[in-house]
Amino acid sequence: MSLVQTTVVTGTGDSIIAVAMKLPTDPAENLAALIRCPSVTPTEGGALSALETMLKPLGFAVDRPTFSEDGTPDVENLYARRSGNGPHLMFAGHTDVVPIGDEAAWKHPPFSAAIDNGEMYGRGAVDMKGGIACFIAAVARHVEAHGGPKGSISLLITGDEEGPSINGTVKLLEWAASRGEKWDASLVGEPTNPDALGDMIKIGRRGSISATITVNGRQGHAAYPHLADNPVRGLMTLVDALLNPVFDKGTKDFQPSNLEVTTFDVGNPATNVIPAKATASFNIRFNDSWTAETLQAEIHNRLDKASGRKKYRKGRKEPVEFELVWRDRPSHVFLTRNDKLIDALAGSIKRVTGRKPKLSTTGGTSDARFIKDYCPVVEFGLVGKTMHMVDERVPLAELEQLTQVYQQFLADWFG
Amino acid sequence: MSLVQTTVVTGTGDSIIAVAMKLPTDPAENLAALIRCPSVTPTEGGALSALETMLKPLGFAVDRPTFSEDGTPDVENLYARRSGNGPHLMFAGHTDVVPIGDEAAWKHPPFSAAIDNGEMYGRGAVDMKGGIACFIAAVARHVEAHGGPKGSISLLITGDEEGPSINGTVKLLEWAASRGEKWDASLVGEPTNPDALGDMIKIGRRGSISATITVNGRQGHAAYPHLADNPVRGLMTLVDALLNPVFDKGTKDFQPSNLEVTTFDVGNPATNVIPAKATASFNIRFNDSWTAETLQAEIHNRLDKASGRKKYRKGRKEPVEFELVWRDRPSHVFLTRNDKLIDALAGSIKRVTGRKPKLSTTGGTSDARFIKDYCPVVEFGLVGKTMHMVDERVPLAELEQLTQVYQQFLADWFG
Ligand SMILES: [Zn+2]
Ligand SMILES: [Zn+2]
Repeated sequence: MSLVQTTVVTGTGDSIIAVAMKLPTDPAENLAALIRCPSVTPTEGGALSALETMLKPLGFAVDRPTFSEDGTPDVENLYARRSGNGPHLMFAGHTDVVPIGDEAAWKHPPFSAAIDNGEMYGRGAVDMKGGIACFIAAVARHVEAHGGPKGSISLLITGDEEGPSINGTVKLLEWAASRGEKWDASLVGEPTNPDALGDMIKIGRRGSISATITVNGRQGHAAYPHLADNPVRGLMTLVDALLNPVFDKGTKDFQPSNLEVTTFDVGNPATNVIPAKATASFNIRFNDSWTAETLQAEIHNRLDKASGRKKYRKGRKEPVEFELVWRDRPSHVFLTRNDKLIDALAGSIKRVTGRKPKLSTTGGTSDARFIKDYCPVVEFGLVGKTMHMVDERVPLAELEQLTQVYQQFLADWFG
Repeated sequence: MSLVQTTVVTGTGDSIIAVAMKLPTDPAENLAALIRCPSVTPTEGGALSALETMLKPLGFAVDRPTFSEDGTPDVENLYARRSGNGPHLMFAGHTDVVPIGDEAAWKHPPFSAAIDNGEMYGRGAVDMKGGIACFIAAVARHVEAHGGPKGSISLLITGDEEGPSINGTVKLLEWAASRGEKWDASLVGEPTNPDALGDMIKIGRRGSISATITVNGRQGHAAYPHLADNPVRGLMTLVDALLNPVFDKGTKDFQPSNLEVTTFDVGNPATNVIPAKATASFNIRFNDSWTAETLQAEIHNRLDKASGRKKYRKGRKEPVEFELVWRDRPSHVFLTRNDKLIDALAGSIKRVTGRKPKLSTTGGTSDARFIKDYCPVVEFGLVGKTMHMVDERVPLAELEQLTQVYQQFLADWFG
């Protein structure tokens, strides 16, 4: 906690009162305030208002745009900017959290921010209210020490990252850009470290595409397979062609592309009936040897070829009839190659933690996939071990360390 | 229709009245009476009582045992015997019928026995009230012409063939055998002809076994497959080993054994989640190169071997963990080699229809699989085309022809 003198103008302007204002320099205090807001997607839960309260004394102009779209929940968001003369850094993140799971299984209530043995418990502690709390503390310390950086800082915070991601970062970026906002670099505060703070910066992400295949066969009695056409045989033939051979062996910056069959369903309870229909869905995480489009073409190509195979369908002459439906929007693969940004972050991490972070492109997608269309983006936050789990928690010492990393980064990047 | 003089003793025995009794020599009349009883499994619907009415004037002693078992419906059955000096022939069948399906789609109400363009409509017309109606007409004609065969005839009729088959033929056979009943041969009146009366006698049946395989994997995020274990990969590996290679190429009397995957289920709606569990069920129709036991051993052997394969699980060291549960009781394969029985039936068919019937072992299971443990058994009935369908129906000419075949068979077999 720290106190600074701030001038607050009240009334008609004829009385000026100097009051003691508290700046949010303590990441644990910031985080506790955020955890106590039960902001399970798409509920705001008070979290964005808590942020606003922290940011205003730091000189940020705060906007709270809400977006909606047919069939999806309205979502509240926050965009805050502290303008200065120089480059513009955007910190991006989300205040929404995943559901708490089995509340009874938590050691401490998930919205209590209880501290136990030097760790703060709560949903969102690491993903990613903790990252936001540290960044605000870092900015507050910078303001306190230097009166602010030589440039602009903005926070682009959504309440829709863990949900459908429709009324969040994408629309917030469009909204801000349409108002003339331009950024030189972005730092996303998602938990990026597997084991210890300083392990890993994410400098890119694999792409992701998902689809569902439906095979319509012909229902019949298990004793008369020649009168029926078992769609499980057809679907096995197609899925086999998706699983083998592998798509690639990985690239310099990325691990190999990988396909997982996420579901395979028939739903036939009768032991003597050949079913009429079978469906399977799959998700592919792909690297920079593909674009979403070239990979989709490869999938179509494999399925078309396999549909004529007899592997599981001895004696069948007609090809497997199938329908392929792409699901969700594709996530595009990206790789950030901005040395100034990466070097400033990696250097700050090394100086504070003593660790040389791995520059990685592994893991799931994040909102960085949207930001990369506007400016170079990297990701660095807390250790992700307990994210999305019961007893999600963060050591207070780690909060302090991340705050120092962000503080150092602000100093170095703004130079 | 025909009339014979029958002596009926009424009152205390001091008055004897001769009345005209109608014998059930007309198969269409018999069938109409049976169709009008709505005997959808497990409902008796009056069908067994109608049979009793037909059989008593022919000199049959009729029993109506009902069996039940925990968790299954009580089922009524009928056993009727007309004793004579000589061998004992059992006619077996069922009066229960499958549900009517979409009643509005029927040209004539399914329990009306309406005659339209020379065909009688109704649920059970061919499967298999028609076969029973013809057999009773054949016996009635034999009794009328010869006063009865040189031996015993019994009818073993269940109300539980289309259902779970627990409280029907199996228990009825045990019940009769425990009372000292012994049979020399059995004729089952199921519809056996694919296209025309006389096409096909069934002289055996394939066996049938069913099982469910469950693979427990480890749930996880689609972006981190190395932290998860996708059970679809494991289950595909196992099912692949069941489908290839084929079990055999068929035998002299049987077609090849065949496995169908009847269902494959995961039920995971989330595109980015690797599921925890996958299950698949299969049914095998097998020939006389196997017993249920040797085939079950083969399945275990294939699964155990496949569980170590990496085919869809590159880099996995641990074998696929699976659970295999056999479902229902196995149906055992059988083949009847009784020349006297087969020749008498085939000869009668040739003489009445002009067709040389194929001696077949194809198709689904029937209650013959239980009867074969007591005596040689063959199956011959109507043309099966419309069985289990909307507008199930039988030409009146075919009823007459089958009655003549059965009549000829009674004459020839009892000799
Ligand atoms: Zn997150
Ligand atoms: Zn039947």
